[in-house]
This record gives sequence, structure tokens and C-alpha cells, in this order.
Amino acid sequence: MSDTINQIPAPGKFITIEGVEGVGKSTNIAFIRELLEQRGLELLVTREPGGTELAEQIRELLLADHTEPVDPTAELLLMFAARAQHLHTRIEPALARGCWVLCDRFTDATYAYQGGGRQLGNGTIQILEQLVQGALRPDLTIILDLDPETGLSRATQRGELDRFEKEKLEFFQRVRATYLQRAAAEPARCAVIDAGQPLEQVKSATLEVVERLLDTESGG
Amino acid sequence: MSDTINQIPAPGKFITIEGVEGVGKSTNIAFIRELLEQRGLELLVTREPGGTELAEQIRELLLADHTEPVDPTAELLLMFAARAQHLHTRIEPALARGCWVLCDRFTDATYAYQGGGRQLGNGTIQILEQLVQGALRPDLTIILDLDPETGLSRATQRGELDRFEKEKLEFFQRVRATYLQRAAAEPARCAVIDAGQPLEQVKSATLEVVERLLDTESGG
Repeated sequence: MSDTINQIPAPGKFITIEGVEGVGKSTNIAFIRELLEQRGLELLVTREPGGTELAEQIRELLLADHTEPVDPTAELLLMFAARAQHLHTRIEPALARGCWVLCDRFTDATYAYQGGGRQLGNGTIQILEQLVQGALRPDLTIILDLDPETGLSRATQRGELDRFEKEKLEFFQRVRATYLQRAAAEPARCAVIDAGQPLEQVKSATLEVVERLLDTESGG
Repeated sequence: MSDTINQIPAPGKFITIEGVEGVGKSTNIAFIRELLEQRGLELLVTREPGGTELAEQIRELLLADHTEPVDPTAELLLMFAARAQHLHTRIEPALARGCWVLCDRFTDATYAYQGGGRQLGNGTIQILEQLVQGALRPDLTIILDLDPETGLSRATQRGELDRFEKEKLEFFQRVRATYLQRAAAEPARCAVIDAGQPLEQVKSATLEVVERLLDTESGG
């Protein structure tokens, strides 16, 4: 029922999808998109780092090879610079007008890659998260979990590797471990899905958690 | 006298030069370079944002016009990302091997432009300064002070204006006021020089404060 008195739309839900290289994020994003569009919801599908013209330019700096070593703190600040631009100019306005947002990687990836992979720890990331996001957190985070060896061999088959994809296996093992730690610490927000299962099973597990969010939304 | 027992060189001194557009930073940098080279000191002349290949790419993003509004927090984080890269890969190694560093703008500019000009305040900048610099601060900061109207008309004559130079006069009045507040709060580090004087007087005032630092250095 539409409520003609209350002109302010209910804010949209913010879903993020996470996982190491080659884990099947794009495929599952397509499944979620199909489900949400069937339900008649307006949906913004976007990604990090990136999602706006300036943030995509920052992404290019982050993923490119450089002739100089990239300072880990510089890398972390570039990630949050792109995030501030994306969040404040695109994601937050979309959520405010009732649009759902589905984002390929978000701050959990920063904890996993910079905090875990680069071993920067969580303290600095928590400070920057607070500074850039305030209280905003995803309503649902889907973590597609796969052993990094399998994921990396899939990513390698897809073509040229970026600066992160060229990291050693131990780096991705730390990334995976951090994702799982975050999921364990925030079970209400994070759903871990075994991405090593046959695709049909991954698909139904993914759609199930999104349907649960839809049910919450409709007061079910 | 060289001390053959102590192999660790005395760290170099870190001088920064600040001021609004068109204030004469480059001219005074040349004066200081001449003086320090006469004294036989190794000197790195550099600038912010920039100073390394990656940091210069970040500078380009900062100064360019964009089709979207640039989020002030994103701008601030880009500044500190460039600074982290510059400081950790170039300035700190130079200082450690005894090289003096003369930098065209540094964190005082962030307080002046983002904190004052963009009215972001000091709190967030202090957090980022601590995060990126730890205890490192310039040994001497020369603030070339000029009313912004004069400075801007000089900058305009030089050619095309960047994204900052296109700001309104009130923006630069806030930038100038912040520089002067910082100088008043830290008189031991900051020297304010009236850049509206005839050039010879600006030159001798600049060289005088650098000579004072040289005297301190030699135990005078």
C-alpha cells in the first residue's frame, strides 16, 4: 500500500559481495540482480574501488603496476578516497531515494586485503572506516569462500593479472582468513557461501540469503 | 670534523615553504637552494602533492577538473595518500641519509586549503597527520604571506588555472587566515614573511630564517 502522507521513501538496502579473485562474484551478482528486478526493486549495481568516474581513476592507480614500490598506507588511503567519493556521491544518494545497492567489494575487502593480506592490522582501517562511513554499514554481506589456489587459477585463466592478483598464495590465504574472521564476528550481517560447490547450489544459497533480507524488509 | 667511529650521518633538515597562489614560492626556493648548495649540503627540492611518480599521478587527479563534484573527504584522503607515498618512499629516506629536503607545500597546506578553505576543520586532518607522519614535522616552515587578491592576479597572468585556483576569493582568504593562525600557534617552527615587499627584502628575510636554522645545526 502506498502511503500518500509519508513522502519519504524507505531507504534502500545495501548488499555487498566479497571474495578472493575468481570466486564467482560477477555470476552471483547477475543472479541477485535478476531476483531483485523480478521483485520490482530499483537496483544500482556498482563496484569498489570505483563506481564513479573519479573513483575509477583512483582504481586504475591502485591496480596498475608502478615503477616505485607502493607504500601500504598510501594504498589504504587511496582505497578510502575512492570509497568516500563513491559513497557520498553515488551510494548514499541512491539508498536515500529507496534504491537498493549491490556493490562488488566494500570495506570488508579493505580489512581482508590491506589489513590481512598486507598485514596492516585493523586499527587504522577502523579509524578510516569511521571517518568515511560514519555509522553506514552494509545490510547484508555475502562472502563467497573458496580456497585461494582454485580462485587464482580461475583468475589466471581469465587473462592478465592486476597488481593484487600478482601477490603470492600466502597473501590470499591471509585475505581469506580475514574474510572468515569478519564473518564469524558479525554473523547477522555476513553470510559465508561455499563457492566450491556446483554453481546451482551456490546460486540457491546466494538467493536464499537475499530472499531472507527481502522478507525482513517486507516485515515478514 | 668527521667522526670515523659514528657511521650514522646526522639527519637532514626538513624545510617547507607555503603560501597562496602567486606568492613567489618558486623564486624563494631558488634562493634557498643557492644558499644551501653554497654551504655544500646535499639538497632534495620537491613538492606536494606530488614528488614521486605515483604521487604526481594523484596530484593530477587532485588538480584536474572533473565532471562530478569532488567529495571533500575524498580530496583530503587523496592529499594524504600522495603524502604517505612521498614521505615514506622519498623524503624520509633522504633525511635519514643526511640530505636536506625543501618541499613546496606540505601538511600546513592541507590545514589551510582543506581545513580552512573547504572548512573541513582540523580534527580529521590531525588524525590523518598522525597516521601518515607519526612524529615527523618540518624543522622550518616559511609562510610567504600576501593578500590573496594580489596573489591570484599573479597566478592568473601565468596561465590556465587548476581546480583550486578557480576557487572564489573568500576561499583564499580562509586559506591565508589559516596559515597565519598556524604560524601564530607554532612560532618556533613557522616564519611568516611579507611577500608583498620588494623582492630583495623578501629574499633577505627568507635567507635569514634559513641561515638561523643552519646556525642551530652547526651548534651555533
